[in-house]
Amino acid sequence: MAMREDRLLPADPAVRPVARRLYEAVRNLPIISPHGHVDPGMLLADEPFTDPTALFITPDHYVTRLLHAGGVTLDRLGVGSPAGANSRDAWRLLCENWALLRGTPVRYWLETEFADIYGITERPSAANADDLYDRIAGAAKRPRELLDGFGIEFLATTDDPADDLAPHRELARIVKTRIAPTFRPDAYLEPARPGWAEKVERLGAAADTDVSHYQGYLAALESRRRYFRANGAVSADHSHADARAEPVDNPDRLYKKALTGDISAEEGAAFRRHMMLEMARMSSEDGLVMTLHPGIFRNHHPGSFERYGPDTGHDIPTTVEFTRALQPLLARHGTDPGFHLVLFTVDATVYSREIAPLAGFYPSVYAGVPWWFLDNPSAIRRFQESVTEIAGFSRLSGFIDDTRALCSIPARHDMSRRLDAGYLADLVCTHRLDEDEALETLTALVSDQPRKVFKL
Amino acid sequence: MAMREDRLLPADPAVRPVARRLYEAVRNLPIISPHGHVDPGMLLADEPFTDPTALFITPDHYVTRLLHAGGVTLDRLGVGSPAGANSRDAWRLLCENWALLRGTPVRYWLETEFADIYGITERPSAANADDLYDRIAGAAKRPRELLDGFGIEFLATTDDPADDLAPHRELARIVKTRIAPTFRPDAYLEPARPGWAEKVERLGAAADTDVSHYQGYLAALESRRRYFRANGAVSADHSHADARAEPVDNPDRLYKKALTGDISAEEGAAFRRHMMLEMARMSSEDGLVMTLHPGIFRNHHPGSFERYGPDTGHDIPTTVEFTRALQPLLARHGTDPGFHLVLFTVDATVYSREIAPLAGFYPSVYAGVPWWFLDNPSAIRRFQESVTEIAGFSRLSGFIDDTRALCSIPARHDMSRRLDAGYLADLVCTHRLDEDEALETLTALVSDQPRKVFKL
Amino acid sequence: MAMREDRLLPADPAVRPVARRLYEAVRNLPIISPHGHVDPGMLLADEPFTDPTALFITPDHYVTRLLHAGGVTLDRLGVGSPAGANSRDAWRLLCENWALLRGTPVRYWLETEFADIYGITERPSAANADDLYDRIAGAAKRPRELLDGFGIEFLATTDDPADDLAPHRELARIVKTRIAPTFRPDAYLEPARPGWAEKVERLGAAADTDVSHYQGYLAALESRRRYFRANGAVSADHSHADARAEPVDNPDRLYKKALTGDISAEEGAAFRRHMMLEMARMSSEDGLVMTLHPGIFRNHHPGSFERYGPDTGHDIPTTVEFTRALQPLLARHGTDPGFHLVLFTVDATVYSREIAPLAGFYPSVYAGVPWWFLDNPSAIRRFQESVTEIAGFSRLSGFIDDTRALCSIPARHDMSRRLDAGYLADLVCTHRLDEDEALETLTALVSDQPRKVFKL
Repeated sequence: MAMREDRLLPADPAVRPVARRLYEAVRNLPIISPHGHVDPGMLLADEPFTDPTALFITPDHYVTRLLHAGGVTLDRLGVGSPAGANSRDAWRLLCENWALLRGTPVRYWLETEFADIYGITERPSAANADDLYDRIAGAAKRPRELLDGFGIEFLATTDDPADDLAPHRELARIVKTRIAPTFRPDAYLEPARPGWAEKVERLGAAADTDVSHYQGYLAALESRRRYFRANGAVSADHSHADARAEPVDNPDRLYKKALTGDISAEEGAAFRRHMMLEMARMSSEDGLVMTLHPGIFRNHHPGSFERYGPDTGHDIPTTVEFTRALQPLLARHGTDPGFHLVLFTVDATVYSREIAPLAGFYPSVYAGVPWWFLDNPSAIRRFQESVTEIAGFSRLSGFIDDTRALCSIPARHDMSRRLDAGYLADLVCTHRLDEDEALETLTALVSDQPRKVFKL
Repeated sequence: MAMREDRLLPADPAVRPVARRLYEAVRNLPIISPHGHVDPGMLLADEPFTDPTALFITPDHYVTRLLHAGGVTLDRLGVGSPAGANSRDAWRLLCENWALLRGTPVRYWLETEFADIYGITERPSAANADDLYDRIAGAAKRPRELLDGFGIEFLATTDDPADDLAPHRELARIVKTRIAPTFRPDAYLEPARPGWAEKVERLGAAADTDVSHYQGYLAALESRRRYFRANGAVSADHSHADARAEPVDNPDRLYKKALTGDISAEEGAAFRRHMMLEMARMSSEDGLVMTLHPGIFRNHHPGSFERYGPDTGHDIPTTVEFTRALQPLLARHGTDPGFHLVLFTVDATVYSREIAPLAGFYPSVYAGVPWWFLDNPSAIRRFQESVTEIAGFSRLSGFIDDTRALCSIPARHDMSRRLDAGYLADLVCTHRLDEDEALETLTALVSDQPRKVFKL
Repeated sequence: MAMREDRLLPADPAVRPVARRLYEAVRNLPIISPHGHVDPGMLLADEPFTDPTALFITPDHYVTRLLHAGGVTLDRLGVGSPAGANSRDAWRLLCENWALLRGTPVRYWLETEFADIYGITERPSAANADDLYDRIAGAAKRPRELLDGFGIEFLATTDDPADDLAPHRELARIVKTRIAPTFRPDAYLEPARPGWAEKVERLGAAADTDVSHYQGYLAALESRRRYFRANGAVSADHSHADARAEPVDNPDRLYKKALTGDISAEEGAAFRRHMMLEMARMSSEDGLVMTLHPGIFRNHHPGSFERYGPDTGHDIPTTVEFTRALQPLLARHGTDPGFHLVLFTVDATVYSREIAPLAGFYPSVYAGVPWWFLDNPSAIRRFQESVTEIAGFSRLSGFIDDTRALCSIPARHDMSRRLDAGYLADLVCTHRLDEDEALETLTALVSDQPRKVFKL
């Protein structure tokens, strides 16, 4: 594997030296990760990673979906019931099918992780699968050892509003990295979904608040947000089928219907869209940054969902609309001092059409960097171009890794720094920025911008 | 600031010399500006520009929206009530926040204007803000002096159908540039909007025509179009929420309802869509080029609209559809001899999907170059690729600056010439065009194509 | 004309040598063409091509639409009634208007064809039109002579389900190329269209099956598919207004209504969407690869349709949606062993948003390469980037020429090989692939991948 110094930097011999200078200046800056899915319990337990499959394959739907598309059934990779698969066999499947990953960032990240963490620079194959397995298993790194080595200054997890957050409090005592919970209330805002009433009941219990009426439900949400803030949270994260935020006249009535289970899917969606306005109001009041990433058709393949559960690689993007959907929300809160709204998407068409124009007027709106299906070099390049040429660099969120794979965090941030350096070098070489400005901009993207946007 | 000769030309050392040769050949050709928003009254008054803020900031929503997104309230920039702001303070805000413009074409244009008009090549900052202010104020250029210096051969303004156009007639006597009005009837075609009846009344008065019935309304529009043509107009410009053109059975009845104020929003939209067919018919008959740019959500932030008025930076793009929307119009007039329809968009997805295929069949349809939120290098590059590979170069409108900022006209045309030279140089270096063809094509884009499309 | 060796390879001096090495390795591999519109009767008759206009202009809507947009009426090109036009005059029109084709792949293909088949390397013009005409007419190539010379190993035609396929059987005896029919049942699945009942009648006759009831209709379709398979078919091709596949409760009732002509447009669409599920079921059972290319507004200009017929250049793309539309189909058949579904589009926005994510999970789904309005270098580049970074290279269909112009087949495949080589060279030079992997990948795209996807 070619772990060459210049990887991902522009090939153009006029641009590469500039990109290299820029990249070198930020390469070792601390990592700020304001949104992701690392399990705080895992950090607390700090069990050594002795199973390469459990570390790199089974929990990472980026990896499993590509192998699945290539004909490997998910059970052979341990998805759904990790204990059901043979770890070494699953590892061999990855190595044998290494060519399936060509051209994807998944390959790039794994390559970087193998090299930087385990010193492995051979290309995985059927021939060396067992050797690689043994070397990784033998190294037995501990999660907190990795966390330290990665230089992660800030790491946000994603948490249920009813969570106690005990691991976060405990970790605050024992790790240098600031590990912050994130308030993720999706399930509490969809009253037509099965199990909603029980969830709200638990929320009420956690908040010690009577949730038998709508005002109590609002109070419970506000209370839990305060609790999250008190435990270090900086943001509230929202992902629904669409981005619409629209008031209803009768939230109390819909809430009552929901509690009795007598609410239609349409009414449930209306209530949820109403609650997006409430969430924005609360963010404006309590200061939690609001992050939004709508437009995913979740669990597209029912057979796989039934057998393997959610987050198993068949959440598929759909079209997204922000301009009309967010107008009522921005009419109310778009210029509220201190309100921050970060817009993410997996529909790349909205970057230049909607997100950049919104972020280029509203002081509250920031363009979330490409993630999930768009966290690859070409999509990132199109994002850089589309958004910065309309809204400038100061309206970007800074890089977000959004990952549940601890080991991939430095690889993902390194990719981002290289791509940002490359884009800025192009601006320098076409005389659109001077090199000192490019350097200042790159440093801001890596350090200052996420601190500002996420109020660190 | 690096006002280097090669700015915006491709960095690739194999391509840049070709691009440079091409650019040099067209760099000084006269400017043709078939659509824009310069105030003819300002040209007639010819007052010297002594206020840098009034010249570069307050009236230009490109600049004010970026500063607003960066936290500068619009009142401090004089938006809404120019007299209310301190001009020097506003100028300082621009200079202090210069970094907000990095990566945007707004910065590129301002840089070019400062250098080419005022000889200012320092990068604006808090430190030199006052000095720059004084140098610009002290130079006190007059609008017509600038117009001459810019080499503008043709300049279209945008005008109300009831306008007398006296400034245009007067200017025809005293300036070399041909200054043509443009017929912009949007407000007269939206009968459900407040104030429509009064507007139509004024139109009838201007046309000396009885507009108490639908046929009289049509006659008044036709009469005013003739008046515009007689005063030099070459085009009629249309911007509505969508591009739909569909006949209604009963325009007379809707017209009557509209006059009494008894028309619903749906009926108003139906009437407007019917009128788009009538506008196409009139263009086909009287020869005014029809330009269309739908799909903007205007005045997205009601608070800013109420306080600062329209065109203050929060018109936000939405999705646009042309294929189905324009089918009835093109079925009737798509092959009419002499009918020209120029399609603009702020939704870049329609370039390859709809505009280029339409312009690649209908002899009447031209692809309008990217403007407004898409008038930046990367969007222009994607337009060049998407449209010319499907429809060739002969179906493009030629460059349109669409600006209300007089000083930015040469900077915008220069940017376009550089980007076209760069794209054509790429085609030469990948052996898709010979250099003589590239040169001929570039010259056509700058000179022949706008003359042909806008019938100059 | 610059028929230079390096055409279409990246201009970047760091990348071009790598691209050249890669391209050279696949340049002469046999051509596999799994979907196209060459007339098998023409191959069987094997009449020499003596009329350059009949060979290069009249039947090729790629060429005629560009000339039409440039002001040449279709009758002068022989469209609609080839005998009605003067062949030499039409040829002169192409040569005089050669500049209309600048920047398009049509020019690139014609240039390649003129050079490689007829040794013509002059740029066409009014001056040399007659000379070129005479040289092409004088060469009088025969279709099968060309077929051999082109190195086409596999060529699929597109055929009506009721066709006897006699030419295919005859050709199997006399040509080396494997010429396979393709099952194209669109017209039989749209019961609200005029003439449907007669078509179904003919289908029943061809299948010797009673089609007076729904089960018989299904049986007739199944029978004809078996017949196609027995005659070498490998795929069934589908193109409707949308991609939706949804069951109806009462197909029998809708079928009965359709037979009596008493079916609404909505019911017809519902029946067709139901039948898409049946088509997927049959493909899953009989192994014919299912190819889908929805989203074209056909015969957009009624005047041209009435005068010149279908396929005359005014089929215009519209938006397409796959994620929701195909969910019921993929829920049923997405993981069926042996089921292959190739998704094509003329709406480029779905590549990264929908097609790549679907192909990156479902083992049955393949991303069809860009065709029709997207078969040009920049659209192909965006496809390469968008799809491979999400789904890898192994989920691509391999190149599809989709052409009715026999002579353009090698030119189109050559363009594809050059562009693939260029993209892979970029990955090598940015250290994302090693060169041996790039070479293996390119060879797979040209040879192995179409064989695997189309089960050759």
